[in-house]
Amino acid sequence: MPLPEEFHALARKVNNWGRWGPEDERGTLNLLTDEAVRRGAASVRSGKRFPLAIPLSQNGPQVGFIPGRINPIRTMISLNEPLTGDPTQVCFSDDIFVMGAQAATHWDALAHASYDGRIYNGFGSATVTAAGAARCGVDKAGPVAGRGVLLDVARAKGVERLDGGYAITGDDLDAAADLAGVAVEPGDIALVRTGQMRLLHGGDRMAYLYPVAGLSLRSVEWMRGHDVAAAATDTIVFEVYPGELPDVELPVHLLHLVEMGMTQGQNFDLEDLAADCADDGVYTFLLAATPEPLTGGLGGPVAPLAIK
Amino acid sequence: MPLPEEFHALARKVNNWGRWGPEDERGTLNLLTDEAVRRGAASVRSGKRFPLAIPLSQNGPQVGFIPGRINPIRTMISLNEPLTGDPTQVCFSDDIFVMGAQAATHWDALAHASYDGRIYNGFGSATVTAAGAARCGVDKAGPVAGRGVLLDVARAKGVERLDGGYAITGDDLDAAADLAGVAVEPGDIALVRTGQMRLLHGGDRMAYLYPVAGLSLRSVEWMRGHDVAAAATDTIVFEVYPGELPDVELPVHLLHLVEMGMTQGQNFDLEDLAADCADDGVYTFLLAATPEPLTGGLGGPVAPLAIK
Amino acid sequence: MPLPEEFHALARKVNNWGRWGPEDERGTLNLLTDEAVRRGAASVRSGKRFPLAIPLSQNGPQVGFIPGRINPIRTMISLNEPLTGDPTQVCFSDDIFVMGAQAATHWDALAHASYDGRIYNGFGSATVTAAGAARCGVDKAGPVAGRGVLLDVARAKGVERLDGGYAITGDDLDAAADLAGVAVEPGDIALVRTGQMRLLHGGDRMAYLYPVAGLSLRSVEWMRGHDVAAAATDTIVFEVYPGELPDVELPVHLLHLVEMGMTQGQNFDLEDLAADCADDGVYTFLLAATPEPLTGGLGGPVAPLAIK
Amino acid sequence: MPLPEEFHALARKVNNWGRWGPEDERGTLNLLTDEAVRRGAASVRSGKRFPLAIPLSQNGPQVGFIPGRINPIRTMISLNEPLTGDPTQVCFSDDIFVMGAQAATHWDALAHASYDGRIYNGFGSATVTAAGAARCGVDKAGPVAGRGVLLDVARAKGVERLDGGYAITGDDLDAAADLAGVAVEPGDIALVRTGQMRLLHGGDRMAYLYPVAGLSLRSVEWMRGHDVAAAATDTIVFEVYPGELPDVELPVHLLHLVEMGMTQGQNFDLEDLAADCADDGVYTFLLAATPEPLTGGLGGPVAPLAIK
Repeated sequence: MPLPEEFHALARKVNNWGRWGPEDERGTLNLLTDEAVRRGAASVRSGKRFPLAIPLSQNGPQVGFIPGRINPIRTMISLNEPLTGDPTQVCFSDDIFVMGAQAATHWDALAHASYDGRIYNGFGSATVTAAGAARCGVDKAGPVAGRGVLLDVARAKGVERLDGGYAITGDDLDAAADLAGVAVEPGDIALVRTGQMRLLHGGDRMAYLYPVAGLSLRSVEWMRGHDVAAAATDTIVFEVYPGELPDVELPVHLLHLVEMGMTQGQNFDLEDLAADCADDGVYTFLLAATPEPLTGGLGGPVAPLAIK
Repeated sequence: MPLPEEFHALARKVNNWGRWGPEDERGTLNLLTDEAVRRGAASVRSGKRFPLAIPLSQNGPQVGFIPGRINPIRTMISLNEPLTGDPTQVCFSDDIFVMGAQAATHWDALAHASYDGRIYNGFGSATVTAAGAARCGVDKAGPVAGRGVLLDVARAKGVERLDGGYAITGDDLDAAADLAGVAVEPGDIALVRTGQMRLLHGGDRMAYLYPVAGLSLRSVEWMRGHDVAAAATDTIVFEVYPGELPDVELPVHLLHLVEMGMTQGQNFDLEDLAADCADDGVYTFLLAATPEPLTGGLGGPVAPLAIK
Repeated sequence: MPLPEEFHALARKVNNWGRWGPEDERGTLNLLTDEAVRRGAASVRSGKRFPLAIPLSQNGPQVGFIPGRINPIRTMISLNEPLTGDPTQVCFSDDIFVMGAQAATHWDALAHASYDGRIYNGFGSATVTAAGAARCGVDKAGPVAGRGVLLDVARAKGVERLDGGYAITGDDLDAAADLAGVAVEPGDIALVRTGQMRLLHGGDRMAYLYPVAGLSLRSVEWMRGHDVAAAATDTIVFEVYPGELPDVELPVHLLHLVEMGMTQGQNFDLEDLAADCADDGVYTFLLAATPEPLTGGLGGPVAPLAIK
Repeated sequence: MPLPEEFHALARKVNNWGRWGPEDERGTLNLLTDEAVRRGAASVRSGKRFPLAIPLSQNGPQVGFIPGRINPIRTMISLNEPLTGDPTQVCFSDDIFVMGAQAATHWDALAHASYDGRIYNGFGSATVTAAGAARCGVDKAGPVAGRGVLLDVARAKGVERLDGGYAITGDDLDAAADLAGVAVEPGDIALVRTGQMRLLHGGDRMAYLYPVAGLSLRSVEWMRGHDVAAAATDTIVFEVYPGELPDVELPVHLLHLVEMGMTQGQNFDLEDLAADCADDGVYTFLLAATPEPLTGGLGGPVAPLAIK
């Protein structure tokens, strides 16, 4: 069944096609201007660092619902192997790994989602082939760094963790920005905290996977209106799931990735960062989060670092 | 045959075992203090960004000399697959990849090299098993960010590229620091440019691989004396190869990784950054280069970003 | 805690070390003599064929209990790609796959199991390294073909499927041979049916995995006494699980692989073959089941074929 | 440029579309009737066995010309790991591997090649997707066993190895059948020896790869006329390469796979078998060569066994 008019109306409102030229493949990452990056660097005060990636291990959050999107498997190709044959000289241990590009902490490439034959900026979805994304792959994202803003929706609502299925609205984001005492500016990177990561920390993968609080249709205009450069959450789905409209699956993905060209991140571990922000009341920081440049990649693993 | 006394004498001089406690697994990354990170952030002036990772693709620099250390292979697990069965609704393209952890731009874990049964801080090399590095794996590196300093040895020598096999000395590093107008301070991260990456850009993988200019035994005390937090180069070997001593393979790896506990990086693409530094005469920047946290990993892919 | 004397007594009785010389790496596969193979070929009457491998797909039986032993993932590396650029000429679709060597239908290499520092024939377990099995790897198995005998224990017991945890004894095997009207001879290959595969066919992977009917300590002397060349079952564990002795895990593996040097197979789909045997009363056939020759492999995928 | 009329004329002559019904996905493997299989079993006289697969190792024949078609990499996921924590009890060593499905000894799936939007039996080439071959995948091949006939063209020509680029004709096949003293019958499986494998044995991978003697356009009618069930060679390309027609790449692949639906095999090691056939003058045998049933696979690794 076709997408409802409600969706299409919203799509028209937030669409960014052509905004950065007909050949643009970076979307809202273009908002990461020199000035925006300087604003990020100026946020550094103490020098404290918060790494936001979850461990790359077989105990990752994937349980097989998406075939092929496997947790990282890392195995040895050599083990203290003496290069000269003599173990009193140099010995090396090397490894190899295989993982789903979207399995752990990652940015979705803009080409990750399509509908009606189109990806961001109107490129045909057929530009994605067995060889990967010829257009809007994660290798086109380029540097991702700027001012990060923690929007701790859970804390703003006074809970440790939003209920699974809670639909975050623009008002919720405003409340979180108020709590942070921050005016979100064009080119900021929004880290939206639901608290869902606590479930993964607690070892309950199934609960982490479903149901999931997340950004809703009622938050999309907020993101577009604030000209956020990118957004990431502490969940595996990013948007609220199950969603708000019957018979419509993951519409926020389409509005962000396809219509707005806004890169979105998943499985960001915001717990330590959030505790520190709550502690010192400072919710802005330099965020350095350049994805691995997988040529033609539909997603890119990233080891984001927040520096306060 | 045993390592020569010359090596052991140098090892005693630069050894850091116990310096950060008997359980330490991070070595000189401990020098990345809050203060060092603030110094890095303070280096940001224009906001210009320089990504330093080479593309993750099958055209990477590996040619099979190290069995199993394969260039990245990324393949599709779904291709514009309609989630609901209806292509006018959301469709996803996902991918998976496999690669040698040391195949592209990466940091070596301290556990990557051993000799005589020991890795950094005196841990037994048997702590590396089929399950990976129980000690000093790349997952123990934590955040890597601070002030980066480009030591453009090639430019300081007045050449586009050092000859393959050129052995970089402490004097060369001093000359590069002089060119940069920088006093290298404890906790800085040194990016040592040889120009070798030009060969990879030119498509000549074999020339890129061998012979290689790089850090030599005569540079190790310099690194230890300046208390550099980490060092990376634009080559695949990192140290000069072939090396300086007959019958001794890769001694700088042992002195850096095992004795000093200094994390070292390889295949950093420094060309654009170096051109800009030559242009504006500013050779310092914030370097954000946290590796992918592969649990037990002997190396970690990294997408380093220099922000000037 | 040490293995009980009961185990060691049995080990002494069935041990084959040295039987085929001190350098032997094939164990009971040596019993597949020309004569035994001719007996297999002579079993062919109708020419009907029964493939015994389960599909290599992500829907395989692995659910993650053994980290890294993943179900096969097969992805495309090219998709109708025109070799000359012109799709009216030849186009190719190619693929790549990754899987646990023991994930689907496979033979265990003799080196797969060890205890007390020894594998089959007294080789040190340290001969297995990060590079694989230097001794008794699956690449040493060589051709596996001979007369197969279906020992349908479930049918002999009058059930569709043995209860999970049922411990198959030598008497059970005798009863199954009686049902088959076959005298098991030296060099025969025994396919022991429990009916457990019906659970996998029915889609219940967890039930397929645990508990499992299988060969027990009380069947080991039977195998040794009949000089079976190899044995395979329609389960994932091969032996009964949970086992018979408290605090002793998988002792039959040790007795078969280490003591006897008897290659054992898992996840053989015997359902169609068993139905046909029940139908025509003929339980012998030519079995062709040479494993993929993975150099140094601890297990080898196999696509066994029974020809009646 | 379009394929020449010469090609299309040949295509019309050998086409098998519809011969086994409109839904057929097995092509000439349908010729492996019970009778043909019995003929194969009846070929067994001595019981001698000849395994025909090359080792699955990183030293395989792939050198990177076909991106992603990598030689097998097998790494350990556990290494003598004590299941109970006690190494005097059972310890396991397990492994995992990744390889191109067409990298070593394999059968091409019929869906491996397409042209002009069609695969075998007129199915659309779009039936091959990121999920693999929905039609004519290697999982549809089913059992492959029957009478094998060695057609030792090199020996019939009186050479150890045909020159690279030699185009094998129907007359050459007749001469090889004469040498063998065999009348090739419908449902036989033809193993065509060029001697090219000697180059791989000798360690010269580049020479093994190019140029290659092989089946030519002038052999296709012979295969169709004799109703061969499948054909395999001891080369990596299968057909002669470079080919016979200017501007036409690999036409024999199209005629075999697409038009005839004849499964073809590559990298079969025929050296030991050929030596034995030359020795005893017997060139027929039972061939058991069922591919690994990769669901949707475009090729299937196989460990073929010839039993004389």
